[in-house]
Parts: sequence; C-alpha cells; structure tokens
Amino acid sequence: MTTSAEQAYNELIATHREIAILGSCESLLGWDERTYMPRGGAEGRSRQVALLSGLVHERFTDKKIGELLSVVEESDLVRDTESDAAANVREIRREYDKQVKLPKELVEEMARITSLAQGVWAEAREKSDFSLFEPKLKEVIDLKKRQAEAYGYDTEPYDALIDDYEPYATVTTISEVFAKLRAELVPLVRAIVESGKRPNMSIIENDFPVNLQEEFGKEAAAAIGFDFNIGRLDVTTHPFCTTIGPGDVRITTRFNPKHLGQALFGIMHEAGHGIYEQGLLDENYGTPLGEALSLGIHESQSRMWENLVGRSKPFWENFYPKAQSKFPSLKGVAFDDFFFAINNVEPSFIRVEADEVTYNLHILLRFEIERDLFREKIKPEDLPSAWNEKFKEFFGITPKNDAEGCLQDIHWSAGLFGYFATYALGNLYASQFFAKAENAIPDLKDNFRRGNFSALKKWLNENIHVYGKKYTAEKLCERVTGKPLSHEPMMDYLKAKFGELYGI
Amino acid sequence: MTTSAEQAYNELIATHREIAILGSCESLLGWDERTYMPRGGAEGRSRQVALLSGLVHERFTDKKIGELLSVVEESDLVRDTESDAAANVREIRREYDKQVKLPKELVEEMARITSLAQGVWAEAREKSDFSLFEPKLKEVIDLKKRQAEAYGYDTEPYDALIDDYEPYATVTTISEVFAKLRAELVPLVRAIVESGKRPNMSIIENDFPVNLQEEFGKEAAAAIGFDFNIGRLDVTTHPFCTTIGPGDVRITTRFNPKHLGQALFGIMHEAGHGIYEQGLLDENYGTPLGEALSLGIHESQSRMWENLVGRSKPFWENFYPKAQSKFPSLKGVAFDDFFFAINNVEPSFIRVEADEVTYNLHILLRFEIERDLFREKIKPEDLPSAWNEKFKEFFGITPKNDAEGCLQDIHWSAGLFGYFATYALGNLYASQFFAKAENAIPDLKDNFRRGNFSALKKWLNENIHVYGKKYTAEKLCERVTGKPLSHEPMMDYLKAKFGELYGI
Repeated sequence: MTTSAEQAYNELIATHREIAILGSCESLLGWDERTYMPRGGAEGRSRQVALLSGLVHERFTDKKIGELLSVVEESDLVRDTESDAAANVREIRREYDKQVKLPKELVEEMARITSLAQGVWAEAREKSDFSLFEPKLKEVIDLKKRQAEAYGYDTEPYDALIDDYEPYATVTTISEVFAKLRAELVPLVRAIVESGKRPNMSIIENDFPVNLQEEFGKEAAAAIGFDFNIGRLDVTTHPFCTTIGPGDVRITTRFNPKHLGQALFGIMHEAGHGIYEQGLLDENYGTPLGEALSLGIHESQSRMWENLVGRSKPFWENFYPKAQSKFPSLKGVAFDDFFFAINNVEPSFIRVEADEVTYNLHILLRFEIERDLFREKIKPEDLPSAWNEKFKEFFGITPKNDAEGCLQDIHWSAGLFGYFATYALGNLYASQFFAKAENAIPDLKDNFRRGNFSALKKWLNENIHVYGKKYTAEKLCERVTGKPLSHEPMMDYLKAKFGELYGI
Repeated sequence: MTTSAEQAYNELIATHREIAILGSCESLLGWDERTYMPRGGAEGRSRQVALLSGLVHERFTDKKIGELLSVVEESDLVRDTESDAAANVREIRREYDKQVKLPKELVEEMARITSLAQGVWAEAREKSDFSLFEPKLKEVIDLKKRQAEAYGYDTEPYDALIDDYEPYATVTTISEVFAKLRAELVPLVRAIVESGKRPNMSIIENDFPVNLQEEFGKEAAAAIGFDFNIGRLDVTTHPFCTTIGPGDVRITTRFNPKHLGQALFGIMHEAGHGIYEQGLLDENYGTPLGEALSLGIHESQSRMWENLVGRSKPFWENFYPKAQSKFPSLKGVAFDDFFFAINNVEPSFIRVEADEVTYNLHILLRFEIERDLFREKIKPEDLPSAWNEKFKEFFGITPKNDAEGCLQDIHWSAGLFGYFATYALGNLYASQFFAKAENAIPDLKDNFRRGNFSALKKWLNENIHVYGKKYTAEKLCERVTGKPLSHEPMMDYLKAKFGELYGI
C-alpha cells in the first residue's frame, strides 16, 4: 500500500462525503416540498433543487474523481475485494461511470420530457384515454433506449435500466425467479377466489378518528424499532421515507378516517424503510458503506415489517387489545374476524390497493410488459391490449378502462422503467430473510406476542443494515440465508398463512 | 454604456442570484432545525450548514466578483446613482468589501468562541453569576474589536459593528436621536408609574386554549395582509420570520395557554416582518433590490403591525367582538378594561417582556453600555455595576441579580454587538412612517374599524417594500416622510395614547 494510494482514497472518501452532504440538503428540500412548503414556494423550490442537483452532478462527474479512482484501483488498497475500501471504491466507480456515461444533453432532455409526460399522463388517466398519453410515452421510451445504449449492457437494453434501481441484477435472473413465482401464485389466487370465503371488511372500513390513528401508528412504529429521537412522522399525499442525514430519518403517511389499515400498515411499511436507514452506521455516513444497498433490499425491510410482522397473528395477539381500547368501533369485534379483515385477498385492478398475495402479480405483469417493450416484442401503442390480456390471464378479470389498467401508475411517465421489479424482489427477499430470522431466533414469534420486536430488529441490523453497500444484493442474500434468491420462501409463507385463512 | 460593462453587470447579478439561492437552502435548514428536526439530527445539520455557508462565503469572496464590480463601477451603467443598477452595484460592493476584509482565521475564531461563549453564558445566567461569563465575554469583545479594525471606521470602532446590522448608520446620528428620546421617555414612564392607575391583568392572563389562539392569531395575521398562500405559521421556542425564497415566507410563534397577548402580538409582529418580505418584488429576487433594507427598517414593519395597529383602539373595535366569541374567558369583559390590559405599562427587568413604552429604555441602556465598552469607558468586568446604575436611572428600580440584569440577553455571547440599537430604531421608524401613512390615507382608522388593513399594507408596499435596498434607511426615511429620523413622532404617539389611558 503506497502512501499516495492511501491519500487518494482518503480524498475520494472526503469528496464523496461532501457530495453526500450537499445531496442531503436536497433531501430536506424534497421533504419540505411534500410536507410543509406553502403553495407559492414551488417555483423557488425548483430553482433550489436545480442548483443543488447541478452542483452534486458537477462534483460527482469531476475528472478528479476518475483520477483518484484510477490511482486507488491500481493499488494494494483494493486487493482484498472483501475489504471495506474495495467495496467503497467499487461502488464509487460504478456510480461515477454511470454518471459520466450519460451525455448532459440526454439528462436534460429526460428531465424536460418526463416533466411534460407526467402532466400529459395525469390528464390521460383522468380521461381514461391512453391515446392522449401514447405520443409522450413513445418519446420517454426512446430516451430510455438511448440511456440504455449510453450505459451499455450485456444481454438486452432493459438490463441497463433495471441496474439503476437494483444494481447488478439482470433480466435473466429476475425473470427466472419471477416465472417460477408466477407459476405458483396464479393458482393460489384462483384457489382463494374459489374458496368463496370473504372477511367482513366493514370491521376495518369504519370510523377511525385520525388523531387516534396517529397515536396508534406512532406506537406501532416505535414498538417495532423506529426511533423517534432520530426520526419523525408527517402527513403527505404520497407516503415516503427520506433520510436527511445521520440521526434524521423521516417517514410520512396519509390518514383515511374511514379505514384503519391504510395509514397503519403504511406507517409500518415506511417505518421499515426508516429502521433500515437508521441502522446504517453513522461512521460510514457519506460513503457507499453508509448507504442502503438497493431498492429491492430496501423494500424487503419495509415489506417485512408491514406484512410478515404487521399482518401476522403474533403481532396482533399483542396489539389487538390495544387497538380495541383505542378505537371504539373495534369493541366487540372478535380477534379472528379482525385478523381475517386485515388479510383479505381479492383480485383487484389497482396495484397500490392490492393485498399481500395479489400485489406480486401486479408487478410480474409490469415486468413482463416493460421487458417486451424494450426488446420490441410489443409497441407502445399495443400497451392497453397487452395489459388487458395479461391481466385476464393473471387475475381472471379485465380492467374496464385504461385508467384502471395501463394508465394507473405514474412511473412510466416519469421514466422509471425497471423500477417496478424492485417491489416484488423486496417481497421475495423479505420472506427469505424472515424465514432465516425465524430459524436464528427460536422464540421470535413469542417475542412478538409479548410486543417485543427488538430481537428481529437487532438481527436485521447485524445481518443486513450495518453492511450498507458492502455486498451486492445477490451476495448478501447468499451470506444471510445461505441460498440465492428464490420464490420458495415467499410461496411457503403465503401458502401456509392463506391456506389456513381460506381453508385451502 | 459599453457592451462589456453590461455583460459584467449581468454576470454579477447572475452570480449574486445563484449565491442567494444557495443561501436560501441554508434558510430552510435553519427553519427546519428550529421547527421539526428530530433531536438526533443536530450534528448532521451543523455539517450541512457549515458546507453551504462555506460555499456561499467562497463564492461571495471570489476575486471574480471584485473584477466584475470594477468593470461596472468604471462604466456609465452606474452614472445615474439613482438607477437600479447603481444601487445593486453599491450594495454588492459593500457586501463584497466587508466579506473580503475579514480574515478567514478571524471568522473561524469568532464562530468558535461565540459558540463556546453561548454555552458559558447560559450557565452563568442560570446561576446568575456574571463572573462565570466574564472571561469569555472579554474574548468575544476582543474579537469584535479586531473585526471593527478589519472593517475600518470613521469615528469609533462601534460604528463598524453597528454597520453590520444597520448599514450606513453611525453612532453619532443614532446617539443624538436616542439622547432626545431618553430625555422625554424617562419622565413619561415616571408619570405613568406615579399615576397609580393599573389595569386588571387577569383579563388576559387567563385560560386561552392553544388551538383557539392559533385560529385567532392566523385570522389576525391574514387580516393585516400576511398571505398564507406564500407563507406559513409554525411553533418554535424563539419566534422568528424567515424567507425561504420568493413565494415562501415563514413565521413562527410560541403559545402560552395562560396568556392571550404573548402569541397574538408575537404573531402580528412576525407577520409584520413577513408582510415586508412578501412585499419585496419577485423580479428582484437574488439582488440587493430584492432584499430588505436593514434590521431597523424590518423592525419598523413588525412593530407597526404589532403595536401601532395591533394594540390600537380601532383594531380592537373590530377584533374584540371576534375575540369574545372565540374565547369564553373574555365573555363579560368590558372593551375598555381589555384594551387597558393589553396596553399595560410597567417598568420591569426583562426586555423581552417589556411593554411598548418601557421597551425603548431597555434598548437605550444597552446602546449606551455597548458604546462605552467599545470606546473603553467601561471595562467588561464593570458591566454589572454599570448596568444596575443605568437601570436605576432609567427605570427607577434595580435588578436584584445579574440574571435579571446584564445576563438576560443571549446577544453579547453570540457577538451581536450593535444589534440592539435596531430594535429602537425600528420603533422610531415605525412611528414616523405611520404618522405619514395616517396623513396619506385619511380614512385609515375607519378602515381598521371595519377590519380592512389593505390600504396601509398597500401604502407600505408602494413606499417601502418594493424598493428593497435601493435607498439607504436614512434616504428612504427622507423620501417617505420628508424628514430625517426623529424621536418626535414616537413621543407624540406615546404621549397621546398613554396620556389618555393613564390620565396624565
């Protein structure tokens, strides 16, 4: 290890940390925009964001970073590929190369077109008229193709796009797992529908005063380990989790006074993201080792707390009495009826309202369509028919219009092709990690029954969070569970849980 | 006008605007820190602030700015000293020179020592022991002397310090006006005390539920013209007003459930600051013409709405019935008794709790002491005795300890010497502007009685706000009122109002 390589590494890390701090100011601008900013502040906010993101981009693509990387990469400092330094260098290189490969003109055009496309999409969805959206969608897809070419890819352009959200993942691996999942999931949904059993949904679609929901949601989030000393909860139209800095992780939710589950499970979901962010090590702040691994792994944390914990029997054995004393409308409602209601499975058209079982089908459908769009097996104009055919095949029902079909999500208008897959990957990782945690912590569910979730949180901290981006998702999964990602743990979980609930 | 001067001017303005946008990100960091940031975020926040303020300083002291200024200053572009360009150039030059004159080492030392001094001060105040604070205070004063030398000054070092808060003002002019004010104010306070009349304070020191206070305060702020589409109100320990950008001006307050006046007049005060900021022209954003003139002029706006409007009879002739229907504890309280209670005058030790009349004496006292400290007529160790002597002379009472004497304010520990004067200047400007507005808008008080404050707001917009930093405060005062700043309008106002209330 030469001194100059060490110096170069330290300079690289210091630069990366400073860029991260600049970026974190942008995070606050974003959080504020969605929570408290007065309406009139929008234009000024866009100028602030443009300035900071320009500075971040300028600094990140500075040739100096490339030079420092080259010095370090040729040194002994990264010889041990398992070392922290090697991981930091690998990830900074990855990020640097991606940013440098994108022509400035393409980045600006993408920002311009997707901003327009989102407006057009909103109108098209309102009028439920795909033809309005089609021209702009074509432009977005063409730009994304150019982006994929700029990045480069091994097998197909879609690989390059997925890589933005799920680094190192490939279409080949994902589609293999998804195909197996689909083969078992479609029959499971069918069996549930055919069982004829239905919970009484009026149990959770009733009066739940917002202030009580807020108290209860915060209690639940704190119980599972979201630390309000280094975090907070606010209200937004679209819930999210954002990290402003070490010691400052914020989640949001939206309350429906006529529905208990939406905010509650939303809060547990975002708290799951937040617990991951709070579990990153402060000492690694501003380096790849202090950053969440991928969207898929992030989603595995939110889904685990939302579904595998939050919709489980042991959790409610502890929380249901609390819920009953909080909410008058739950008085006299039997535990089993409540538990069935929060675990209702029902094929429906809208992804964001979907249950734990059918949700994945919504994702598989989008993944297959996106892939076919980018390998030109379907054309943008064929989207509505392709969507509806697949929907019938997966769910047994057909959307009655494009608003509840291929126009429902904002993602494509925003250029987020490759993003959807991470939602299902998250569910798969969640189940696989959770199955391992159950083995590793023998009294896990008894802990839940006593309202104690710290053993699971600690296990996630130690096995996943502290590593940041040290390993790839694939590698982490192997390390933690001893196996590559598989559809089996999730199918085992779903079959056991819903088999019992629906008697199938 | 040569093309290159024009180009230089445009570049100068563009640079200044970009620096302003960077600075506005810092404003959001500051607002968030005091409103919603979780406790754990403090360390990360200080790094964000340090980074951004470093960037702002670096850009503002860039030699390029000096070069651009020189090109423009030698051109025809600024020949007309009344032109917008000339004013912008004058103010950028002023700011640039001040920043460049301060050695980096002094700035850093000041930040370090004042940060320590504030901690020591807090402890000294808690223990009411000036000797604890004295060594650190000496260090701060020595640094401020070095700062004054670095800036340079005509007459005395204190001039250079005042100039940071009240540009172009001098100790000579201020002390002349203050001396006249003092000569009339001390006897007025004495006469009030000797009148023996006292309002029934339990009228406003009663139960005033916080949520109702918030509703009422927002109603009052909106009525006087604070626009909530481009602003908001939050809760903080120490109320303030901050501008995040054009279209985004935020005020804060603190509620006391056992006192109606504190939050209400606090909100009107901050709303006054906010109305000024909202009245700056968006098209001038990021240039000196789009910035508030001085702290004194800013305070004139907040004090006008808080006192000359908010504590006036016409205002309450409209708002008192509303207050009575909002707050059960006001039912059956006669208008005159309520009005007397919100206008109670009483010598007291703590500045921030002082009334409209005695408040100015608190400032005059501090101004005289600060001046004497910097011309070395008193030493730091003599502060407690100097304070107590002057206090007895001004108010007729003596603080029983340093906590309610010379240790009460945070300002000196933070290095804010020269700041206090702007509070009294604000009161003086407020009265002088208001007297002019009353002449210019003949039915002004009738408007107030009808709950209509838009004529006054419009007058302030047109005569003061739109100009930003175009004129110096002195010049603006002459332009608006036809006269230099004087103690007379305020004394006339105080004598008339409190003469009637106290029958003197």
